[in-house]
Amino acid sequence: MIVVMKVGSSQDEISGVKKRIEVAGLKAHISEGVEYTVIGVLGQVFPDLHDALELLPGVDQVIPVSKPYKLASREFHPEDTIVEINGVAIGGNEIVVMAGPCAVESEEQLLATAQVVKAAGATVLRGGAFKPRTSPYQFRGLGEGGLKLLAQAGKETQMPIITEVMSPDHVDLVAKYTDILQIGARNMQNFILLDEVGKIKKPVLLKRGLSSSIQEWLLAAEYVMAQGNEQVILCERGIRTFETYTRNTMDLSAIPIIEKVSHLPIIADPSHATGKWYLVPPLALAAVAAGADGLLIEVHPNPDLALADGPQSLTFDNFRLLMSQLLPIAQARNRKLATTSVKTKP
Amino acid sequence: MIVVMKVGSSQDEISGVKKRIEVAGLKAHISEGVEYTVIGVLGQVFPDLHDALELLPGVDQVIPVSKPYKLASREFHPEDTIVEINGVAIGGNEIVVMAGPCAVESEEQLLATAQVVKAAGATVLRGGAFKPRTSPYQFRGLGEGGLKLLAQAGKETQMPIITEVMSPDHVDLVAKYTDILQIGARNMQNFILLDEVGKIKKPVLLKRGLSSSIQEWLLAAEYVMAQGNEQVILCERGIRTFETYTRNTMDLSAIPIIEKVSHLPIIADPSHATGKWYLVPPLALAAVAAGADGLLIEVHPNPDLALADGPQSLTFDNFRLLMSQLLPIAQARNRKLATTSVKTKP
Amino acid sequence: MIVVMKVGSSQDEISGVKKRIEVAGLKAHISEGVEYTVIGVLGQVFPDLHDALELLPGVDQVIPVSKPYKLASREFHPEDTIVEINGVAIGGNEIVVMAGPCAVESEEQLLATAQVVKAAGATVLRGGAFKPRTSPYQFRGLGEGGLKLLAQAGKETQMPIITEVMSPDHVDLVAKYTDILQIGARNMQNFILLDEVGKIKKPVLLKRGLSSSIQEWLLAAEYVMAQGNEQVILCERGIRTFETYTRNTMDLSAIPIIEKVSHLPIIADPSHATGKWYLVPPLALAAVAAGADGLLIEVHPNPDLALADGPQSLTFDNFRLLMSQLLPIAQARNRKLATTSVKTKP
Amino acid sequence: MIVVMKVGSSQDEISGVKKRIEVAGLKAHISEGVEYTVIGVLGQVFPDLHDALELLPGVDQVIPVSKPYKLASREFHPEDTIVEINGVAIGGNEIVVMAGPCAVESEEQLLATAQVVKAAGATVLRGGAFKPRTSPYQFRGLGEGGLKLLAQAGKETQMPIITEVMSPDHVDLVAKYTDILQIGARNMQNFILLDEVGKIKKPVLLKRGLSSSIQEWLLAAEYVMAQGNEQVILCERGIRTFETYTRNTMDLSAIPIIEKVSHLPIIADPSHATGKWYLVPPLALAAVAAGADGLLIEVHPNPDLALADGPQSLTFDNFRLLMSQLLPIAQARNRKLATTSVKTKP
Repeated sequence: MIVVMKVGSSQDEISGVKKRIEVAGLKAHISEGVEYTVIGVLGQVFPDLHDALELLPGVDQVIPVSKPYKLASREFHPEDTIVEINGVAIGGNEIVVMAGPCAVESEEQLLATAQVVKAAGATVLRGGAFKPRTSPYQFRGLGEGGLKLLAQAGKETQMPIITEVMSPDHVDLVAKYTDILQIGARNMQNFILLDEVGKIKKPVLLKRGLSSSIQEWLLAAEYVMAQGNEQVILCERGIRTFETYTRNTMDLSAIPIIEKVSHLPIIADPSHATGKWYLVPPLALAAVAAGADGLLIEVHPNPDLALADGPQSLTFDNFRLLMSQLLPIAQARNRKLATTSVKTKP
Repeated sequence: MIVVMKVGSSQDEISGVKKRIEVAGLKAHISEGVEYTVIGVLGQVFPDLHDALELLPGVDQVIPVSKPYKLASREFHPEDTIVEINGVAIGGNEIVVMAGPCAVESEEQLLATAQVVKAAGATVLRGGAFKPRTSPYQFRGLGEGGLKLLAQAGKETQMPIITEVMSPDHVDLVAKYTDILQIGARNMQNFILLDEVGKIKKPVLLKRGLSSSIQEWLLAAEYVMAQGNEQVILCERGIRTFETYTRNTMDLSAIPIIEKVSHLPIIADPSHATGKWYLVPPLALAAVAAGADGLLIEVHPNPDLALADGPQSLTFDNFRLLMSQLLPIAQARNRKLATTSVKTKP
Repeated sequence: MIVVMKVGSSQDEISGVKKRIEVAGLKAHISEGVEYTVIGVLGQVFPDLHDALELLPGVDQVIPVSKPYKLASREFHPEDTIVEINGVAIGGNEIVVMAGPCAVESEEQLLATAQVVKAAGATVLRGGAFKPRTSPYQFRGLGEGGLKLLAQAGKETQMPIITEVMSPDHVDLVAKYTDILQIGARNMQNFILLDEVGKIKKPVLLKRGLSSSIQEWLLAAEYVMAQGNEQVILCERGIRTFETYTRNTMDLSAIPIIEKVSHLPIIADPSHATGKWYLVPPLALAAVAAGADGLLIEVHPNPDLALADGPQSLTFDNFRLLMSQLLPIAQARNRKLATTSVKTKP
Repeated sequence: MIVVMKVGSSQDEISGVKKRIEVAGLKAHISEGVEYTVIGVLGQVFPDLHDALELLPGVDQVIPVSKPYKLASREFHPEDTIVEINGVAIGGNEIVVMAGPCAVESEEQLLATAQVVKAAGATVLRGGAFKPRTSPYQFRGLGEGGLKLLAQAGKETQMPIITEVMSPDHVDLVAKYTDILQIGARNMQNFILLDEVGKIKKPVLLKRGLSSSIQEWLLAAEYVMAQGNEQVILCERGIRTFETYTRNTMDLSAIPIIEKVSHLPIIADPSHATGKWYLVPPLALAAVAAGADGLLIEVHPNPDLALADGPQSLTFDNFRLLMSQLLPIAQARNRKLATTSVKTKP
């Protein structure tokens, strides 16, 4: 951390800053330039100090030199993290497609979808049992019943499953049935929930919050990792902007940025990002062209009767078409599509 | 709900929409105009139907006629809701000022602040025991120890207290010590938490989410109210925009909008909205001029040593100055400042 | 400007930065700390250098120490600028209300409005002759005919007038008729137009762009001032955010921020910021409570027949009511409302 | 346009709306439902009527049924528009790459760049002679001198050229030298400039404004087309959001949306969208995967000495690498890269 003093700051002000740094148990290194004085802070700096120093008289700016996250940063951990789930590797050379219905509605709906997406090339089955809904009057999911159906469908189709967990006291329950725990966009800064999923031993897919900067997203990953769980997969799903044509604005630049600053795998969810099924295939292809390690896609046997998010779900035919278009894009980036070679769960 | 068909939509498409409406247990009223056909949906409509209809062939637009929230709306409940806590009435003619430190740090810090803010005219004591922090390495509050200090300071100064609850399984604990439960901006769509605070019998202060529309905010209030707790106070605390000078952009238009569409009280938090102490007084005055029912203000004995959010905290002197400026603004709007007439808690 | 080198940057990289600074005709002051090296840039720095240095190998960050605007900054010009037009002083102790119709439609409409707003306490008459419209098919104003009507109405009611100029080659024409030239939000970065209004000798009201930061806004003011015209009045009129209830989100924090960083007067336009007439009075009062030097308000004899922006225009009665509410708010901030003492134009 | 009356609106209110519609020279078709009344507006509706009707007593909502733009819409003009410039076709099956320096600095810089980008596969040469700059103290381009260098480099390399025009009175001058006139993001709603480029007979590339919705962008295209110039190419270049890591947030969903609602070609500018050279290649590939008809890429012989936007410019080597990666992506979408077969200009 570097403190830049105002032009013309007094010796008293400079001493004040030095003293405050020392109160925090750190060392100050004063460098008086011709026009202004710069004070370096030596030692392990916590973010709170930034705010405290900025407030002191004579201070012009406080500049964080090191990034506020560590475990999630590529500087700290240069090699790519590859998350493995029953033989599916996320973050390696292969593109992993996770597909399934937004919400689990029934055994038939889920199983039919699971079989189709697997046949078309998906390697992870998605489905919501606990659904975050804007209105309390909307369908909020089947709960544990939905988890059971997911586990059963995963077993029958030999696919690992991913589902959302919304509350700290559901973590154990959800972890019992699922292979990957998903943290939704609205919970990206539900810090207690992040702590809890950090304590279990299963991979966590962390969606970017609707109004989260890249840095805040990585700090949320840091929460999970700081508890000991380093199997974090990031998922770009659109941010909130002024544009109303799409539900959110998909920020595909996040993909190469994450690749640069973090070692964690990054996938993309064009279904939630756009909210419109006909925008899902072009954005899915774009995400892989930009370097995404995988996709999260909503598929429904009958989107116009879906209990949640029908307008953004692909039909079976549209999903098959997307998968056929995806392969040459992956190849153009020297990558493959993951193939299903799931080990049987014991 | 009204469905507008595309120009030139076919009879089959019109029948398809009618059928889908009837599947949902509702009635369709078809009105064929010269240029296009409009279909009215009669009966209690749930939001999911909107999406489902929009997807059908031949449909141009689906327009929700009624608002998606009900308990929170002024149409449903025309008179102002006044939330009363130990003699302090929020939402009536008097402006209520809630003040105190961002985080409870120690008995001395809290009590000193409590006495000063009370003497200056505040009627509710605020303070954080569980703190949501962007980084896992920042100070996260004293937990139950902080709650005890708050309860003690509230008792000694005869002020009701308000503090944040971050997790569903903390609700009972926090409710044991506090008079008002605060839901922070990052948890505005933590739906399980909203359900839980809806089940208790204490007022809830619901901060607007960083990227929440007015409608989503009222739907979050609806979550709490749908569980039976109608004592909800809304709090505008800034939204996330492209401007970086302030931490967030305070949306003061939210105050007269809430007053128009809802019966719930609305207060303003200029400390978190701006992130800079010198912007707090002008925005606090502006909020009251715009019609706010109260203010939530951070005050700290020594902001530059604060463990959290020092830069946005007022010193004791600055708080006293603000209170003296607030009175004539309140009077200009034909309102008074609330005075402390707290009943002794049994 | 300060260059922070990456931890572990090499001597070659440090020399490279030094050399690049010297190529720009400036001096480099190298300060090697224990953990990282900091290089101060001495001399008059232009913004382009920031980008160039940031790109060099070994550079972690480049921090601008001085602000990129100078003529508009309070550091450079500590006393408040007061813009005087025919006896109306903007930026002093008195609150100046500029009011009138969005677009000039006819002699009757304009004159009737002018007389009412003057009687109610406005001291400047506004009206659009050239109207920026989102669609080419909307009413785009009466052009020079509208300017003539404005000049006539200003003369008859003894009020200076303000109107928008949209194109560099209209500047002379508009300046011939009006007392203040308005630059609209959509033209805030129409740099050629800024140059041109900088060359004339009449005050310029510069609206904030829909997506402009405070700094970009002041840089736009700098464009005008750099041409020699220092009579610039800033006007906050809302920024574009995700919220759709209002047309834009009024950023009232801009008012105390401008007061702190600039010497230029700042007024507020709640009509365009909100787009809804019933939000105009509370936001107008809030703006003055926040410290605004004046207001720009749309008033129309018959808003529901207005050719432009009817929904945000106040009726005569609503404007009179607003003016009566404004006085005590101004007094609460120790200010007065400006009174009309316009000198007769020669 | 459809007017939805409030539940319980009176016959007087319904008549008032009918009368207002008839004042505008249109017909009203009243359809009284069980719960509410809906009034259809028949005839050619102008956008101003929307606002006027929304204001009337008893009106709940006014819904535009038809889009406010016509010439730019695919409904009105179902086949793709292909813009042809000296043998280069934009909007057809071939991907067109426009490349060159941000600003024209010298004959050597421009010619060297032109030769390299042509050899690597670009078919249009870009370069700025008039540069919009945030600060008045930055390099603002060589003006007509720059135009002459561009024309000369275009001739020598047999490439059509594209350059920005910033002011209505420069249109003729710029059109004299260039093949495509570019309207920059900051001028997207400079309506007088749009009128002027609509009057000439050369293609116009219209960049999306930083805070422009898709609809506003198409309305800006409509301005140009309404003057008779239908050769409009749209260009997505990022929108302003809260994320600060990138200069803007590239909205790639705009590409398939434009393809759906408009017949105009759409290209992408990842250089300005991201502001960082290392993000340009992945976003360029993503744009083509999403369906873009072309790219606008900044290339500079020596980015760290560039007079403008160095940090976002590719070196010659990086540009060649990008072009080699682009080909398989284009092929994966069943498209080709355009090849240079420019006819000699007379």
